[in-house]
Amino acid sequence: MTLHATLSPREEIITRQVAAMRSDGLDANISCSPEGFAHLTGFVVPSQPLIRHRHAMAILSAAGDLSLFGVDMEESTIRRQAPAPHLTVWAEFRDDPMAVLADRLTTLGLGSARIGIELDYLPAADFARLVRLMPAARFEPIDAMLARLRQIKTPAEIALLRELSRIADRAIADAYAAVGPGSSEMDIAAALTRRVYELGAEHFKLLIVATGERSQLPNVGPTARILQKGDICRVEIFAVRAGYQAGVCRTAYVVEPPPMAEKIWSLLADCKQRILDQVRPGASCLAIYQDFIGRLATMNLPPISFVAHGIGLHLHEDPYIGETPTIGRPGQDTRLEDGMVLGFEPLCYRTGFGYGMQNKDLLCVTASGAELLSDHTNTDRLIRVG
Amino acid sequence: MTLHATLSPREEIITRQVAAMRSDGLDANISCSPEGFAHLTGFVVPSQPLIRHRHAMAILSAAGDLSLFGVDMEESTIRRQAPAPHLTVWAEFRDDPMAVLADRLTTLGLGSARIGIELDYLPAADFARLVRLMPAARFEPIDAMLARLRQIKTPAEIALLRELSRIADRAIADAYAAVGPGSSEMDIAAALTRRVYELGAEHFKLLIVATGERSQLPNVGPTARILQKGDICRVEIFAVRAGYQAGVCRTAYVVEPPPMAEKIWSLLADCKQRILDQVRPGASCLAIYQDFIGRLATMNLPPISFVAHGIGLHLHEDPYIGETPTIGRPGQDTRLEDGMVLGFEPLCYRTGFGYGMQNKDLLCVTASGAELLSDHTNTDRLIRVG
Repeated sequence: MTLHATLSPREEIITRQVAAMRSDGLDANISCSPEGFAHLTGFVVPSQPLIRHRHAMAILSAAGDLSLFGVDMEESTIRRQAPAPHLTVWAEFRDDPMAVLADRLTTLGLGSARIGIELDYLPAADFARLVRLMPAARFEPIDAMLARLRQIKTPAEIALLRELSRIADRAIADAYAAVGPGSSEMDIAAALTRRVYELGAEHFKLLIVATGERSQLPNVGPTARILQKGDICRVEIFAVRAGYQAGVCRTAYVVEPPPMAEKIWSLLADCKQRILDQVRPGASCLAIYQDFIGRLATMNLPPISFVAHGIGLHLHEDPYIGETPTIGRPGQDTRLEDGMVLGFEPLCYRTGFGYGMQNKDLLCVTASGAELLSDHTNTDRLIRVG
Repeated sequence: MTLHATLSPREEIITRQVAAMRSDGLDANISCSPEGFAHLTGFVVPSQPLIRHRHAMAILSAAGDLSLFGVDMEESTIRRQAPAPHLTVWAEFRDDPMAVLADRLTTLGLGSARIGIELDYLPAADFARLVRLMPAARFEPIDAMLARLRQIKTPAEIALLRELSRIADRAIADAYAAVGPGSSEMDIAAALTRRVYELGAEHFKLLIVATGERSQLPNVGPTARILQKGDICRVEIFAVRAGYQAGVCRTAYVVEPPPMAEKIWSLLADCKQRILDQVRPGASCLAIYQDFIGRLATMNLPPISFVAHGIGLHLHEDPYIGETPTIGRPGQDTRLEDGMVLGFEPLCYRTGFGYGMQNKDLLCVTASGAELLSDHTNTDRLIRVG
């Protein structure tokens, strides 16, 4: 990465994509998913993930020229965030966005070009119209290429994911510190969401507050349940900014730990450390997963099919530290690389003692090993509430 | 709707879709979008909207048989929510979901059938594989059919949207009541999000807290800004349950209203009432919009391109009370119908006095006119904070 140290973060990403595009013989790439757009521009068009037909795209030519495409409703937002690139605006109520896109591509001299496009995102009906409108162009899928490029983060992307990891981690710690026996799950949620904003997240996702017997349920929000002495609490949140997301989960007990809780937690904390110790460029995802499974087995705890996954602009990215490190390639191993960021989560929803436990952190693969990004809380021991 | 009074809510929806399917000569429909799936089943598969490749589908035959299709990770969630229908499970890491889907469709005797499918949702690459795997089947787009069916809500859907509207409305009122001069936007957000959960929402979307000069910005979350005497505050939230979403926005002043605020508000409140008075089955969307524009013009306030839009399982649905009532059909009017639910929002982001104002409610078109669903707060006057 030092090669590109003089480039601004997005220039580095653009340079990498141009190189990949040329090596595949493409004349241009169209990034049309929210994560594809954000990767090239550094921001998300707010309504694109919410209202599917509001297409926003980034068109990158093999010469390295970037131009944008967006709906009229978002024109001012896009221009504020990206004053430099050319912006083609289509009218939500009047235009077929594919017709406007075809015109723009033709203007760019791409009427009979080889054009890469995200066909795992673009709806089939839109693509069929685009192909009809541009019969001389050849469109090719670039989803795997872009996913691969997004796997290796730039220093600026790692810095943002580090900041978001710390925000989520610290917000959970502060929320636990603000409650005690007699507080409700709602009290935890209110303190947590407030802190996530205060600490600088743009918004958040996937708030989980699961206490007592509810700590066994995978994905549940807060309820009016009152915290009682001896409860286990599982709290998770994803802090989000510019499309990048960092999820942290912490487990606590209320006043005194229930039977076996400290012992099971020691095992999970040990698993976290073993993962950090094993992660480095070249490490085998399968080997790390098998080591984790072996550790869980020493206490007869049931595993899930992975213990870590890539994260960044998408909630789950390859590689997985799991049974199948790359989706769609069962039986094939994947090696970790410098610059990958992983969410990793030694967890057990059903310990057999009426509670579940989970620890979730982000790490970055560095030249020499692993850097823990969510480093605010010492998770060697369970957090105490009250 | 009284015709179907003896059917359970989803049975009514299924019956309507079967009738539409038969009238179009289709043998089966595949609902593969989150809103299409939720419309037939009454629930959302949690990770479908978050992780795009985790396909979940509802297959409805012209005989009225419903069967479901989902990823292994969500199997227990789907079975808990829908114990009755047949469920086909595909393995996230090993299977091509389209191959599993093609097998299932063939087993259902649909190998050479006419099959409706949501081609404005299904990604182009998935659709291309499905077509290759089922060369004798004919696939046809049903997006317009399903959108049309979703426009007319059942009594159970209206009841849910009424409850969610009241939750959002009351939560905003309670949040305003909990703060005063010296409180921050974060204090409003913390009180608001807590109340939305407490009052029974599953989660929320699109939290906007915009005070003082920030009240002019369309879509902004809370910051550390401190409320001061004379501020205008714009607060909006969408309460969400089972995929259905109801958004409410309320405007308040802090201790004393700034210049012209009460006068502009009177106009917006009058616009709200005029819309409620004009809405009824058969009413022209264009005529209501032109009346609204005319009212804004009396104070030289700049309009946006619509003042209302359909809402339910999708944030924006046809019809719009706006320049173009149906997307893609400029110049063509649309008539309102019994059972439609609209979000309507007389607003002005740039009043010219350094603040913006917005009122957003939900209404349902009834046989005799309009029912205001978000009826907790009297919006004839601005809310006072402090």
